[in-house]
Amino acid sequence: MSSTTSHRAWPSPNDLAVPLVAQLLQDAERLGVCWTRDERGTCIVDAGIDAPGSIAAGLLIGRICMGGLGEVSLVTDGRHGWANWLQVSSPQPVLACLGSQYAGWSLAASKEETGGKKFFALGSGPARALAAKEKLFDELAWRDAAGSGVLVLEVDRAPPRVVIDKVLRDTGLAPEALTIVLTPTSSRAGTTQVVARVLEVALHKAHELGFALDDIVDGTASAPLPSPTADGAQAMGRTNDAILYGGLVTLSVNGEVEAARSLAQRLPSGTSRDYGKPFADIFSAAGYDFYKIDPALFAPAAVVVQHLPSGRSFEAGRLDMPVLLQGWREAA
Amino acid sequence: MSSTTSHRAWPSPNDLAVPLVAQLLQDAERLGVCWTRDERGTCIVDAGIDAPGSIAAGLLIGRICMGGLGEVSLVTDGRHGWANWLQVSSPQPVLACLGSQYAGWSLAASKEETGGKKFFALGSGPARALAAKEKLFDELAWRDAAGSGVLVLEVDRAPPRVVIDKVLRDTGLAPEALTIVLTPTSSRAGTTQVVARVLEVALHKAHELGFALDDIVDGTASAPLPSPTADGAQAMGRTNDAILYGGLVTLSVNGEVEAARSLAQRLPSGTSRDYGKPFADIFSAAGYDFYKIDPALFAPAAVVVQHLPSGRSFEAGRLDMPVLLQGWREAA
Amino acid sequence: MSSTTSHRAWPSPNDLAVPLVAQLLQDAERLGVCWTRDERGTCIVDAGIDAPGSIAAGLLIGRICMGGLGEVSLVTDGRHGWANWLQVSSPQPVLACLGSQYAGWSLAASKEETGGKKFFALGSGPARALAAKEKLFDELAWRDAAGSGVLVLEVDRAPPRVVIDKVLRDTGLAPEALTIVLTPTSSRAGTTQVVARVLEVALHKAHELGFALDDIVDGTASAPLPSPTADGAQAMGRTNDAILYGGLVTLSVNGEVEAARSLAQRLPSGTSRDYGKPFADIFSAAGYDFYKIDPALFAPAAVVVQHLPSGRSFEAGRLDMPVLLQGWREAA
Repeated sequence: MSSTTSHRAWPSPNDLAVPLVAQLLQDAERLGVCWTRDERGTCIVDAGIDAPGSIAAGLLIGRICMGGLGEVSLVTDGRHGWANWLQVSSPQPVLACLGSQYAGWSLAASKEETGGKKFFALGSGPARALAAKEKLFDELAWRDAAGSGVLVLEVDRAPPRVVIDKVLRDTGLAPEALTIVLTPTSSRAGTTQVVARVLEVALHKAHELGFALDDIVDGTASAPLPSPTADGAQAMGRTNDAILYGGLVTLSVNGEVEAARSLAQRLPSGTSRDYGKPFADIFSAAGYDFYKIDPALFAPAAVVVQHLPSGRSFEAGRLDMPVLLQGWREAA
Repeated sequence: MSSTTSHRAWPSPNDLAVPLVAQLLQDAERLGVCWTRDERGTCIVDAGIDAPGSIAAGLLIGRICMGGLGEVSLVTDGRHGWANWLQVSSPQPVLACLGSQYAGWSLAASKEETGGKKFFALGSGPARALAAKEKLFDELAWRDAAGSGVLVLEVDRAPPRVVIDKVLRDTGLAPEALTIVLTPTSSRAGTTQVVARVLEVALHKAHELGFALDDIVDGTASAPLPSPTADGAQAMGRTNDAILYGGLVTLSVNGEVEAARSLAQRLPSGTSRDYGKPFADIFSAAGYDFYKIDPALFAPAAVVVQHLPSGRSFEAGRLDMPVLLQGWREAA
Repeated sequence: MSSTTSHRAWPSPNDLAVPLVAQLLQDAERLGVCWTRDERGTCIVDAGIDAPGSIAAGLLIGRICMGGLGEVSLVTDGRHGWANWLQVSSPQPVLACLGSQYAGWSLAASKEETGGKKFFALGSGPARALAAKEKLFDELAWRDAAGSGVLVLEVDRAPPRVVIDKVLRDTGLAPEALTIVLTPTSSRAGTTQVVARVLEVALHKAHELGFALDDIVDGTASAPLPSPTADGAQAMGRTNDAILYGGLVTLSVNGEVEAARSLAQRLPSGTSRDYGKPFADIFSAAGYDFYKIDPALFAPAAVVVQHLPSGRSFEAGRLDMPVLLQGWREAA
């Protein structure tokens, strides 16, 4: 158990997600999701494995993933040659994106542990903040203390019992107080909730660049919503491309003006040496090894950093829709 | 009574519409609508005859018409030279649009039956699925079994008692369990709820083209919202133009990839021999006889068919704003 | 007390604001606002003085200011070279904007009265309609009679007791039935709720031009949302520029067609002799005296007047984004 305790007046993302999770279960038929409780009472939501899921389910799961601290909505305006776009915003971007939405909790089980296939997933969503297993929570000097929790897994099968055991142990939750939402990348809900991370990707890179998280106080974003596809690698490539080449993020920041300007300069994906090709090609060229890809690539295409004390807005990067659209669409 | 019974796990559009109808009545003053109960208790909502109605009322009626299975919202971004646009989406487009929203229930009464003027309307909205009088419901192999219902009529006077009798008989509803919403084409609510059919028009044509409805699993759309006008023919022309020349629809489909491509090729309004002129002119040239107009015309201007198994998106058609705008606006 | 009595079937903006105010208090942590009750029980909400506030808080305060009779939302589509835009609409624009949102209630206290610094604010929001101290309410021939009220003040410190006394006296409210929301121009919530007045600015000018208010029946609008800045004059300049050079308003009107056309011709900001420079420059050139600025300037950049009886839409004005963007942003 982490030694950090909550000394921030932050709201609880798990508590704020409760009504959204209730809505997901109540509207299950409408949203095309299915849910069951396992033998101990943990609620497992299938949003795209055997259940069809939907874009609407993905929007709601995106909001759940942000711990009720962000809005995720669909815009169908066809701008820049693509029909469907997501927009995301949060009045608490650090807490919503890094404290809750970021897929940072490594959940693995070996063949021996599962008694079958090995399992791996990066857990995202509010329950991370109950477990606080990641170094990030030490930096935030905060953890959630809610009595229920929800975890989102981008997987195509249910987690084995040993993984659920670990989640229960690390979060301290009673089994019936935990909800796990499953969204395969290749599903509509999965694609939607991943692209809804466009703001989070900016927050994560700002953190990697050493920008003071306490100085980031508001955030808005948009990105094109690709069609999912049954090919998992292609689906993953598209969700990355949506952000790297189609993402637009605005951050409102405090602190020194030069820190704000520098953040804008260094934040866009175009600062990376790997920038310029569809992500699937980059991933392939890296031998399908994430750790060989330049981390600077994981960022929105275009950024605006609004420095509140001076009122100066620093812009950098630009959308590069042709890189996206070459692989996303074709004339009928 | 139809011999079909429900064998689908579809949610009930009438049940899902209950809170939306309650909101329409509760917010009546704000939305500019009036409602009364007739002598038997049936609720009649005037959204633009004697009451002024509003765009906001039309948005809510659009959602009611989709049986709570779709979102209808206003976007005021001024794109393509026009200020106001609608966007529509549904995670259950077949049920929302064909099972509920489509104006397919013929409700007529002769002079003899009404004791006055003859009456004709095409009923739309969830109550259609209780009556299931249309062949379409046999194809869907589904009907709703809710205990209350709501019907939308695009008319400029209240339906005569004989028509209400027929609705009650065919739906099996108690009089006080039925709500009828009246929206003249020439009203703001009427124009809004008709343009909100942009996705439904695509579904209807896909069905006419023989595309397997079960393979259509998600849908999003947008169309410009014209100004209503007191001239009913002109008002009707504009709502059609909004879809035929300004409508953009994206469908997510399963099935064979060539079926998806073929759907995209054949779906847009531009495939029709009658395409290219404002609808009012086409209607006039057809001697005001709908049945002389090429049915292929009734479709959105631009379509994207996203084939989920392959991840390929097929695009066809394009917006033709000049055809619209020539009759919609002028410099002051 | 005004001699006018309510003879209109208008809903109560104060009553309609009750659930929105409850949401503001309940979501205070999430929205970054703080609230307290003073010694008599009046609720004071700090949305940007000591509390950080947020864009999301400003959106909700915008809806509160319109008495629950309008929608205010954020669009992050990056159009016209700027990331964040607001959109506003109301099915009751005269009541929402002039009866409630307009900042027209002069609330002043001298040094002697405050026992410290003098205080001045223009009160806006629903509580104005309880006090009905402005001539406008005589013209509207209406006042609100709700049992609770909410007032919005664009100030950077809490109002002194003598001002709260005056508000309580003029509204006739019990202290604990009054909520006062404080939003400095230089805060995110303040900037947001001021730009959310884009529709109101059009209504106010239409009124000044003598257009019959009863003939304005629907309204929609959009405007770019600038970055706030700690410099109050600059912050005020930007919120004005957002409307004067970036505002787009559509009004649906009844009455004579030539009155509608004339309204469109005379409504845009471009009809003013002062048009063309950033507002901060105009204000400076006027010696920081509002009354030396041509009142015709206070208007949206582009307007559409939709004359419902004829269906004709009259357009005038145009956005002038370069005037805005020169002072709003820079390359990093």
